[in-house]
Amino acid sequence: MNQASTEQLIDRPARSDHRLILSSRVNGTPVFDDSGERIGHVDDLSIERVSGDVVYAIMSFGGFLGIGEKYHPLPWALLNYDPERGGYVVSLDKTVLKDAPHYDRAELEAFGGPGRDSIDRILTYYGPYGAITY
Amino acid sequence: MNQASTEQLIDRPARSDHRLILSSRVNGTPVFDDSGERIGHVDDLSIERVSGDVVYAIMSFGGFLGIGEKYHPLPWALLNYDPERGGYVVSLDKTVLKDAPHYDRAELEAFGGPGRDSIDRILTYYGPYGAITY
Repeated sequence: MNQASTEQLIDRPARSDHRLILSSRVNGTPVFDDSGERIGHVDDLSIERVSGDVVYAIMSFGGFLGIGEKYHPLPWALLNYDPERGGYVVSLDKTVLKDAPHYDRAELEAFGGPGRDSIDRILTYYGPYGAITY
Repeated sequence: MNQASTEQLIDRPARSDHRLILSSRVNGTPVFDDSGERIGHVDDLSIERVSGDVVYAIMSFGGFLGIGEKYHPLPWALLNYDPERGGYVVSLDKTVLKDAPHYDRAELEAFGGPGRDSIDRILTYYGPYGAITY
């Protein structure tokens, strides 16, 4: 690329209106609740293969080196990026998140992301909190 | 999740109509040309932060441990997953891909994905090959 446009792009890495983000940068990003408490992080993204839509952020609440860790697919629309905190804010009670459908790593790896049944199950669960029908 | 739905999902990991895929699984996936030659791999995905649309696959043609490696954002719509090859097929001449707009790792990391100018530049480049306007 030419030098002028490189500088223009590098000049705005932290802007909140930054339009695009690398998936490798999303993974590992902390997730906060409304009070600012760090409740977990985004571990992965579940993407619709054909359209390329991110359907869920795969959220983790912790665990030790993945052992006993449970992954909670969270509809993308429920995450709001907060540039000041450097993470996503989810305006849901922690209890709602922890009671949501979740999977262990083997389940996630085996099916590469929830199938249609799980999509329906997760959207039914999060529908009252503003998840968009998919 | 309940046992029945777990088994149902695990039973179909390799189906080509598998609807969702984890971003961690996309990254590293080989890319082939029409003749079946492996021409590179998907190194990362560039995602629109708000909508969650995958705009580009960040394609790499190789390089040694990232040194001297150049990354070519390729509109997602131009990649077709081939379950038999276990990778994506891009029906473009290798010369077209190599002459396309590309960036080094520092550039990618600095701006977290190309900005609007680069989007226009890349879509203008790939438009004749069927890239969808974004």
